[in-house]
Amino acid sequence: MHVSYEQAEKAIAAAIAEANKIGTQMCIAVVDSGADLKAFTRMNGAWVGSIDIALKKAKTACFFGMNTGQIGQLSQPGGPLYGIEHSNDGLITFPGGVPIVDEDGVLIGAIGVSGSSVENDHQVAKAGVDVIGLADLPSHPWRT
Amino acid sequence: MHVSYEQAEKAIAAAIAEANKIGTQMCIAVVDSGADLKAFTRMNGAWVGSIDIALKKAKTACFFGMNTGQIGQLSQPGGPLYGIEHSNDGLITFPGGVPIVDEDGVLIGAIGVSGSSVENDHQVAKAGVDVIGLADLPSHPWRT
Amino acid sequence: MHVSYEQAEKAIAAAIAEANKIGTQMCIAVVDSGADLKAFTRMNGAWVGSIDIALKKAKTACFFGMNTGQIGQLSQPGGPLYGIEHSNDGLITFPGGVPIVDEDGVLIGAIGVSGSSVENDHQVAKAGVDVIGLADLPSHPWRT
Amino acid sequence: MHVSYEQAEKAIAAAIAEANKIGTQMCIAVVDSGADLKAFTRMNGAWVGSIDIALKKAKTACFFGMNTGQIGQLSQPGGPLYGIEHSNDGLITFPGGVPIVDEDGVLIGAIGVSGSSVENDHQVAKAGVDVIGLADLPSHPWRT
Repeated sequence: MHVSYEQAEKAIAAAIAEANKIGTQMCIAVVDSGADLKAFTRMNGAWVGSIDIALKKAKTACFFGMNTGQIGQLSQPGGPLYGIEHSNDGLITFPGGVPIVDEDGVLIGAIGVSGSSVENDHQVAKAGVDVIGLADLPSHPWRT
Repeated sequence: MHVSYEQAEKAIAAAIAEANKIGTQMCIAVVDSGADLKAFTRMNGAWVGSIDIALKKAKTACFFGMNTGQIGQLSQPGGPLYGIEHSNDGLITFPGGVPIVDEDGVLIGAIGVSGSSVENDHQVAKAGVDVIGLADLPSHPWRT
Repeated sequence: MHVSYEQAEKAIAAAIAEANKIGTQMCIAVVDSGADLKAFTRMNGAWVGSIDIALKKAKTACFFGMNTGQIGQLSQPGGPLYGIEHSNDGLITFPGGVPIVDEDGVLIGAIGVSGSSVENDHQVAKAGVDVIGLADLPSHPWRT
Repeated sequence: MHVSYEQAEKAIAAAIAEANKIGTQMCIAVVDSGADLKAFTRMNGAWVGSIDIALKKAKTACFFGMNTGQIGQLSQPGGPLYGIEHSNDGLITFPGGVPIVDEDGVLIGAIGVSGSSVENDHQVAKAGVDVIGLADLPSHPWRT
C-alpha cells in the first residue's frame, strides 16, 4: 500500500500548522512505500539546503522502516552501521524522518522534515504522521 | 523574486484540476527563480518515472527562461544545441516545462508537468502558470 | 535579491588582497542567493583540490545562511547534525564559507574560500564579505 | 604550462566587452591545461542554466584541444564519436568552447561561453582567447 495524494496533502497541512505553532520554516517531504516522492512543500523563508535533507530523511525513514534518528545512533563512529550514509545516493540519519504505518502495521510511506533543530524537525514530522498514520511503529513494519 | 508557497499551492491546484478535466494522472513540480524546489505533487496513479521528469522540466524551463519544448526544437540531431541535455545534471527538453513571470516581466520560477502526452503535459503546466503568472513570457525574462 | 556581478568582482578583489597580505594562494567562489555560481577565481599556485572545496563552502553557507564552521560544530560524531555533509551533493562544513547579507538583513549570496588553514580561509572570506555585505548576519537571514 | 590568473582575468574582461557590444548576457569560464577551473563570471541577467554549460564547454575544449563545435560535428547520430557527451561527467559539444594556445603551440587552457546563440557564444569565447592566446590552434596542440 502507498500513501495517497489526499493523505500526503493532509499530512503536509498538519506539519505546516505545527511548524507555524513553533515559529519555524520547514521543508516537508512525503514519500510512498517505494520511497518515491509523493508531495513536497518548502515554506517561505525555509533554507534552500533543507530541500534535499527533507527528501533524504523521508527516503531514509522509508528505506529502513524506522525513525532516522534511530539509524543515526547506529551509524556513529564505532557503531555497527558506521558510514551507512554513503548508500542509496546519500542518507540523512539524524532526527526528522518518520515512517507512516497503516492500521495493519503496514508501511505506507514516510515523512521527512528539515529547517530547524532536529527536535523541532522530528516534532513537525510526527505531527504530519499523526493525522494519517493509524498505528504505532512496529519493530519491523511490513511493506506490501 | 521567488514564487511564494501560496502561489505554488495555487498553481498546483489549478494544474490538478486541469489534469482531472482531461482524465490524466500527473506529477507537478514548482521551482523558484533559482531552480530550487518549492512544491511538488504526484497524483494517484501517476508514473513513478514521471517524478524526475517533472522536476527536470521545471528546472530546465527556469534555467533558460523558456518553454522546455522550445529548447527541444534546438537540441535535435544537427541542431545548434544538440546534446544540451547532458548539462546541469540532466535536462528534459520536450514540452511540459513552462516559466512563471510576474507583472514586471521578471522570472519568479517555473512549473514542470509529466504523466501523459507532451501536449497534455504542456496544457496542464500552462493551466498552473495561468493562475499565478501575471505577464506573458518576454524574449529574455530577467531574474533578480 | 542576488549579489550582482559588480559586487562579486569587488568581493573577490578584496579577498585576493587579503590573501596576498597573509601570503596564501586561495580559491574564491561567490554564489547568489539561490546558491548558483556568480564568480570564481583561483589564484596562481592554489591547490586544484581547493576549487571544489571553495565552491562547496560558498554553497553550504548560502544553503543554511550561516558560517560553514558553525555547521561543522553541529555535525561532529555524536552531534545533532552528524552526517549532514551527505546532503546536497556534498557539503563542506569547516570554516571558510560566509553568507552575504544586505542592509535589510536579506541573504543575497555567500563566499567560499579554500587554500590555506581554515582560520586563514575564514579571514579571507570575511574580507570579501566586508566590502559588499551591509549588515551583520541575523539569526535567520531571509532569502527573497 | 597553465593559463595564469592574470591571463584569465584579461580574457574574461575581453569576453565581457564583446558580449556587451552584441548585447548579450553570458557565463564565461576559463580552465587551465588540466581542465581545472581558473576563473568564472556570470554577467547580470545571464541564464542560470548557462553556468554549467560554460564550464562544460571550457572543459570539453581543453580535454580534446579543439573547438567544441568540431567535436559536435563528429558526435551526431551515425558519426564516429556518437554519444561522446556521456564521458567525463558530461561534455557539451556545440560551439562556444575554444582552446587557448601559447606562442609555442602548447595548450595552456580553454574558454567556455554560454548565454546566447551558439554563434554569439563562439564569438565571445574567441574574443577572450584572442587577447591571451598567442598562436593559432594547431592540429594537435600539445599540453605540458
